[in-house]
Amino acid sequence: MTFYKDKPDEECGVFGISGCMSQPAAYETYLGLYALQHRGQTSCGIAVNSEEADIFCRKGMGTVPEVFGEAVMDSMTRSHPASCAIGHVRYSSSLEAQQDSTQPFVMRYAKGSIAIANNGCLVNADALRQNLEKDGSIFQTDSDAELIGHLVARQRLLKGTLEQAVQAAMPMMEGAYCCVLMSRSKLIAFRDPRGQKPLCLGKVGEAFVVASESCAVTSLGGELIRDVEPGEILVIGKQGVTSISTPKAEKGAFCVFEYVYFARPDSIINGLGVHEARYNAGRQLALEQPAEADIVAGIPDSGIDAALGYAFESGIRFAYGFVKNRYVGRTFIESDQMAREKAVAIKLNPLAAEVRGKSVVLIDDSIVRGTTSAHIVENLRRAGASAVHMRISSPPFLYPCHYGTDISRDDLLFARRQAAEHIRLQIGADSLGYLSIRGLRKATGSSRGICDACFTGHYPVEAGKSGDKFSKKLERL
Amino acid sequence: MTFYKDKPDEECGVFGISGCMSQPAAYETYLGLYALQHRGQTSCGIAVNSEEADIFCRKGMGTVPEVFGEAVMDSMTRSHPASCAIGHVRYSSSLEAQQDSTQPFVMRYAKGSIAIANNGCLVNADALRQNLEKDGSIFQTDSDAELIGHLVARQRLLKGTLEQAVQAAMPMMEGAYCCVLMSRSKLIAFRDPRGQKPLCLGKVGEAFVVASESCAVTSLGGELIRDVEPGEILVIGKQGVTSISTPKAEKGAFCVFEYVYFARPDSIINGLGVHEARYNAGRQLALEQPAEADIVAGIPDSGIDAALGYAFESGIRFAYGFVKNRYVGRTFIESDQMAREKAVAIKLNPLAAEVRGKSVVLIDDSIVRGTTSAHIVENLRRAGASAVHMRISSPPFLYPCHYGTDISRDDLLFARRQAAEHIRLQIGADSLGYLSIRGLRKATGSSRGICDACFTGHYPVEAGKSGDKFSKKLERL
Amino acid sequence: MTFYKDKPDEECGVFGISGCMSQPAAYETYLGLYALQHRGQTSCGIAVNSEEADIFCRKGMGTVPEVFGEAVMDSMTRSHPASCAIGHVRYSSSLEAQQDSTQPFVMRYAKGSIAIANNGCLVNADALRQNLEKDGSIFQTDSDAELIGHLVARQRLLKGTLEQAVQAAMPMMEGAYCCVLMSRSKLIAFRDPRGQKPLCLGKVGEAFVVASESCAVTSLGGELIRDVEPGEILVIGKQGVTSISTPKAEKGAFCVFEYVYFARPDSIINGLGVHEARYNAGRQLALEQPAEADIVAGIPDSGIDAALGYAFESGIRFAYGFVKNRYVGRTFIESDQMAREKAVAIKLNPLAAEVRGKSVVLIDDSIVRGTTSAHIVENLRRAGASAVHMRISSPPFLYPCHYGTDISRDDLLFARRQAAEHIRLQIGADSLGYLSIRGLRKATGSSRGICDACFTGHYPVEAGKSGDKFSKKLERL
Amino acid sequence: MTFYKDKPDEECGVFGISGCMSQPAAYETYLGLYALQHRGQTSCGIAVNSEEADIFCRKGMGTVPEVFGEAVMDSMTRSHPASCAIGHVRYSSSLEAQQDSTQPFVMRYAKGSIAIANNGCLVNADALRQNLEKDGSIFQTDSDAELIGHLVARQRLLKGTLEQAVQAAMPMMEGAYCCVLMSRSKLIAFRDPRGQKPLCLGKVGEAFVVASESCAVTSLGGELIRDVEPGEILVIGKQGVTSISTPKAEKGAFCVFEYVYFARPDSIINGLGVHEARYNAGRQLALEQPAEADIVAGIPDSGIDAALGYAFESGIRFAYGFVKNRYVGRTFIESDQMAREKAVAIKLNPLAAEVRGKSVVLIDDSIVRGTTSAHIVENLRRAGASAVHMRISSPPFLYPCHYGTDISRDDLLFARRQAAEHIRLQIGADSLGYLSIRGLRKATGSSRGICDACFTGHYPVEAGKSGDKFSKKLERL
Repeated sequence: MTFYKDKPDEECGVFGISGCMSQPAAYETYLGLYALQHRGQTSCGIAVNSEEADIFCRKGMGTVPEVFGEAVMDSMTRSHPASCAIGHVRYSSSLEAQQDSTQPFVMRYAKGSIAIANNGCLVNADALRQNLEKDGSIFQTDSDAELIGHLVARQRLLKGTLEQAVQAAMPMMEGAYCCVLMSRSKLIAFRDPRGQKPLCLGKVGEAFVVASESCAVTSLGGELIRDVEPGEILVIGKQGVTSISTPKAEKGAFCVFEYVYFARPDSIINGLGVHEARYNAGRQLALEQPAEADIVAGIPDSGIDAALGYAFESGIRFAYGFVKNRYVGRTFIESDQMAREKAVAIKLNPLAAEVRGKSVVLIDDSIVRGTTSAHIVENLRRAGASAVHMRISSPPFLYPCHYGTDISRDDLLFARRQAAEHIRLQIGADSLGYLSIRGLRKATGSSRGICDACFTGHYPVEAGKSGDKFSKKLERL
Repeated sequence: MTFYKDKPDEECGVFGISGCMSQPAAYETYLGLYALQHRGQTSCGIAVNSEEADIFCRKGMGTVPEVFGEAVMDSMTRSHPASCAIGHVRYSSSLEAQQDSTQPFVMRYAKGSIAIANNGCLVNADALRQNLEKDGSIFQTDSDAELIGHLVARQRLLKGTLEQAVQAAMPMMEGAYCCVLMSRSKLIAFRDPRGQKPLCLGKVGEAFVVASESCAVTSLGGELIRDVEPGEILVIGKQGVTSISTPKAEKGAFCVFEYVYFARPDSIINGLGVHEARYNAGRQLALEQPAEADIVAGIPDSGIDAALGYAFESGIRFAYGFVKNRYVGRTFIESDQMAREKAVAIKLNPLAAEVRGKSVVLIDDSIVRGTTSAHIVENLRRAGASAVHMRISSPPFLYPCHYGTDISRDDLLFARRQAAEHIRLQIGADSLGYLSIRGLRKATGSSRGICDACFTGHYPVEAGKSGDKFSKKLERL
Repeated sequence: MTFYKDKPDEECGVFGISGCMSQPAAYETYLGLYALQHRGQTSCGIAVNSEEADIFCRKGMGTVPEVFGEAVMDSMTRSHPASCAIGHVRYSSSLEAQQDSTQPFVMRYAKGSIAIANNGCLVNADALRQNLEKDGSIFQTDSDAELIGHLVARQRLLKGTLEQAVQAAMPMMEGAYCCVLMSRSKLIAFRDPRGQKPLCLGKVGEAFVVASESCAVTSLGGELIRDVEPGEILVIGKQGVTSISTPKAEKGAFCVFEYVYFARPDSIINGLGVHEARYNAGRQLALEQPAEADIVAGIPDSGIDAALGYAFESGIRFAYGFVKNRYVGRTFIESDQMAREKAVAIKLNPLAAEVRGKSVVLIDDSIVRGTTSAHIVENLRRAGASAVHMRISSPPFLYPCHYGTDISRDDLLFARRQAAEHIRLQIGADSLGYLSIRGLRKATGSSRGICDACFTGHYPVEAGKSGDKFSKKLERL
Repeated sequence: MTFYKDKPDEECGVFGISGCMSQPAAYETYLGLYALQHRGQTSCGIAVNSEEADIFCRKGMGTVPEVFGEAVMDSMTRSHPASCAIGHVRYSSSLEAQQDSTQPFVMRYAKGSIAIANNGCLVNADALRQNLEKDGSIFQTDSDAELIGHLVARQRLLKGTLEQAVQAAMPMMEGAYCCVLMSRSKLIAFRDPRGQKPLCLGKVGEAFVVASESCAVTSLGGELIRDVEPGEILVIGKQGVTSISTPKAEKGAFCVFEYVYFARPDSIINGLGVHEARYNAGRQLALEQPAEADIVAGIPDSGIDAALGYAFESGIRFAYGFVKNRYVGRTFIESDQMAREKAVAIKLNPLAAEVRGKSVVLIDDSIVRGTTSAHIVENLRRAGASAVHMRISSPPFLYPCHYGTDISRDDLLFARRQAAEHIRLQIGADSLGYLSIRGLRKATGSSRGICDACFTGHYPVEAGKSGDKFSKKLERL
């Protein structure tokens, strides 16, 4: 019996800091990566910029505390008390995650050294790589970050400054990217013209920070300044921050799933708090998919924000429906040894006192197969719930994502083939309701340029030339 | 700069299962210990009862997933597919936690082998140990569990059955204890006559379970049958469960701090859900310590239950005030490397969108020094809160606990010497209010025999003969 | 295909030091255990005696460097800068070695605390344990060291001093033992009346040391004073060393296998260097089992000493026949993945330049099944040896050992049933010769009281009452 | 007090196998790397060639058994049952060894993928890298292997086959190199025109093997075919082995230190066994530097071969003078905690029975500072040696090596400034004698093209253009 994930996976977070005086930049980066850990737990790395020596980089498999223990951090901050650093956390879906693809990459070329890290997915990576290879480029990984590093370095050999090289390279790159790039003298951040992945600028003390999410800025005690604009290049050096604009796309394509699931609730993206967006979605869901019930409960942690909104809008009492086991980290509970229900219950135990004899509106932010949901519903019933009305604060997934969100083809086919009624039966809920696409757009601010192709199939870019990952993915489906 | 804990620490959880057929008993015990992990992360152990071979025990330093990896568990369940097992999770406050005191203990004596594990603290341990030593007993640790094992074994040499030996030993033991004891043929559980620590009986499939908290029963998909009574001995064997009553104390003395902080919200103790008790305390707190505010927020995870109650009673909106970093496990963030505010913010970041410009009622379940609280209040203000009214859903700690709750003498003296106003200033809150003792009693059901000596100084037993831990502790203060 | 060991296994080493001033006793013990590591790699431990606090003990599974890393040792020597300590290295043949049996044991009884560690095997352990249990003793392990601790503590409750208690306990103990025992004020060492296992007294700087072998004294830069006598009790305290004699056995029974295989060549036992004994055996072997050959080569490290003696006596040139891979530690090379020959060759590669075209006398100190030897002979031939004459510098094993040497019953039966010719064929040697029992006695000094029961079947004690390990072992065979 | 190494360090070993049928190539490579472990313990890696999937590479910090545990190896051989693989063990002298430089490197370029590993040191690396960078090359490490990979790949883009690309690249490379390079369809090995580092070809079963030393071939049960010639390129594919000759240097420059210290005694290089060379050196040393003595002893393991030769030539008895502790692996014994003498004695204890009252000729293969030697001599005297005549079977180091042998500048200056008499005094020996350069040449076969610049200062190549490592090194001295 295979076990299907119920959530798609995210693909990385980036962090960069410059002008850090009171703390070693490596240490602030370490803390910033902690705050971004939800974006990837497969591997992580930090590169620091020492003006005296070469860029120093340390990276490894595992979470931030696993890779950067106290001894490692001590030695790194002592030997490299740099004021500038970049870092990366990475998610990898491959079973045998390759250590080689751990970021940042440090690259030495004719003009010196750079370190680079990226969040995103280029749809024309294969074509770009082939072109570069024709000119003699040699790659050591499949990583887009290495590829972008090559593109930029090539341009730098032709053009003046590093930022001009970035500016020249960007039009070649199709797809989603948010890069932090560091040379000996400056930190450069740039975001794709559609702004598909989040990237923001903040200030922590006297230092400037760029990060995938603002939670990494505020967790460090800093303040969010603004998002990096789609197509914008930021250059951060001794003179402060300089901005270079490159053409934005006509239509923005910010990944709606950041609001739905990926980002942390305390992050603010495009002026909208992630918690607020989810709360709004919950309110909207209450209007679209009302239910007769005694309490509203959210599945921790993903469904809590929307559950509060649903409760507010519906007037049904919000209740603390589950206790999440704080200690269940890397366990083998999910292996085949035991029934799945038990694994689910060990992680998430219904609060019987709250649900016994009650009709429950159960909120989650998204659902793929519903395998886990089915066990949660079953456990709720065993704890005494008289009825369970499942409400999802986003529409069903129906289309593959080409920009880094990892949902399996099987899961999508499943969702497409099954009628909602079928899924409801499988979950075992008394009723099942999804938020509409219109509702989701309303919750996240309809005027903003958002990509919701995974729900609608309206991709921000047409499928490209043969050989692209993009086309291959479409073919595969 | 020293860092003071803001919470007392708990001292252990026990688990026992008998009659387990569909799963190896060791595996169910492993899951049960997971559910009790909040009661102790220093060390843990599992002893299984194989009728063919001797009792097999495996234990080590660390959490359940650290000690029992998949390979260890596989080998244990394969080599010992027993139907009966006991387990233990332990908290130790000593810096150099002694591996020897890891439980369960396996003891071989004239009548065979037993394994034993305990949650509690005997106040006459020194006197008992001296008496046993006069008769030739040899101890290898300072553990009460080893001591109780000796007491029971001695009685067993004099009297008939193992349960009769337990019955004979119990009147000798002063203080708090909840033991699980296993011989080749049966599982015995017994609880002190004042019922100071929690212990319950449940059913998981066809097996009977005893556990410190009912969350370990329901997490396994089982049902809580009832609490083990103060002074009760349960004998669980092939014939099912037999109960032996020994005299209860005139006055029960169940530790109120289990309701306040220790136990998991989904546990039910003495018929009252822990979440419910905390919710009640929050409601009562709203009546006793009202505040003018826009939102009510709880400090995760400890203040959430009471915050919901406070919000309900006061009519002020409950808001999700903080995001707790799920990945901050064993890190060195708390070391001296950085300002404490930063460490607090990395773990608990205020949700700016919810608190900006708002007057906040901030709820926590208890407070010792308030060092962490001060940082939380500061972070809330930086996130834009216009006012912070701190409310504590229990009274101030003023007296030491002799039964296992670990609060330092310095912290108690601090609490005693400082006026509430002084503490408020230190925390930096606009106002500070505690729940009254009467209020707490109301929240937890006034008629029940509860020990709240840490708040009131009314101990369930007078200080004993010289040499007792108890007297020594009083003297020290 | 099962893999048979070609050597019996040894069972532990002990070390004790008192009066250590210039270095912490724990540190000297750590070094001493290193020097005794060949006697056991399963687990190890160190107990130090702090006059201010209780005895502190640290132990774990693995070799000395695995259990005592730099951080552990630093903390131990800082927190316990004691002048007295004992230590133990242990070999365990059981597949699932029990951590509980790791030594030393620390025991607290009516007269204070003691720590104890032992090398040996009591043949009346079961009877002793049963007697003690009748008087209320409770055991937590199967270890003889725990049993002896109980015996001594019991006597101490009856009699005056700790050494008198030891004196009273010794006549009860049948079998082999070499104990180090430490109380707050003194270090006591005692050896069984037959002197079956080695134990010596030395001086390292101003401190007195007792150790299983003198290599642990000289490796620390100290000097061997003398062997501890059979039946002797040494008391080492502030007044220096006091000796108490208890009756020696009529006939000594020092384990000949210490000279043959167990002990390190640089140890001196009963006035005879172990290297010297092996060298003598090699000379004797040359006389008894001559061969026509070009070179003499020993199997490293076990056969080198005897090979030098053989070469000297025979006049045939000694050659360096093999290179031993220094890095093959805990590998999985021995698993079933590969042919055994390859595993052998990776560890021990013949030096082709020396053996090509030559007739080789190949010396080893002992042989059980000869599986490994067969591969070595095969590899020698492949490296070009024209003939291989296998010579063993001890007689064949034929009888089980009751005192700690671990040879499997199957292996003994194999040796008994096979004629030497059969074994030669299996090994694939051109000739095979063993040293005679008389020859071995000559090499080790015939007048000394030595137990060579594993070769002769003449045990130092008759098989005891039913229930003894001894009888059981005989029955099993 | 700083601790000076007494030996230079070696820089890597390579291994490649093709046509492996009965075992997975990864497994044979793993065993081959074990046999080469003495050439580097800092890191290691294996790349396997799966015709279906891309080249798969696994590498990490540590020794072969540390990086390739059973589980890792199992998964690797199961997922990649390839018939071709290459591997590398690496020594790094830098304190913070960079994981990025772990070999093999896998590189993807316009013509596919290659994996490469190297032993050696290019003296014109900086100039080569700069030239490549001008053409757009980007490097991720400082490794020569990565550089050579780029050189070859560039040529491959211009020329026909991969072997032709190697042939075109070789004339550009100055210095020492022995490379194994693997594409999807073949294994290529090539050695620099002076043959500075060892590389041989062998056969293991049906597979062809190239390895730094023949011990890796014979340990696998295979046979050495011959050395790879200086300047030779071997192409190993389905058609077997093809050889391409490129111009040899006029004068060979094989590193004499391979015979003196680096290589394993069981390896055969240029037709001369390493043991034989050392034995010869010992014989020659006896002629040049005779001594009146009772025994000859070698320092294990480095001095044993020469000691046997010295004993043979001088007629003085060879004795087993020390016992080397087999268990002292990665310990902290060498830290500042203790006197150095003790650290030395724990590792190497004199065999008192052999040396007491004797005059000893003590042989070692080389000496830098003599710090360790001084302790060994001291320990010998304490064990009772009446005189110690130190003899070194190579001349003194006086000049830096530019080809990978790591001797510190301080150590060389030390050796240059001190008269031999001064060093003798420091060592505390009664006399000290080195082998002459002429003597060493005789021992290793005078006619062969050998580089002994570290003894003579006669480098095989003049110091190059500015910017070379080579020149910088000379300047530094």
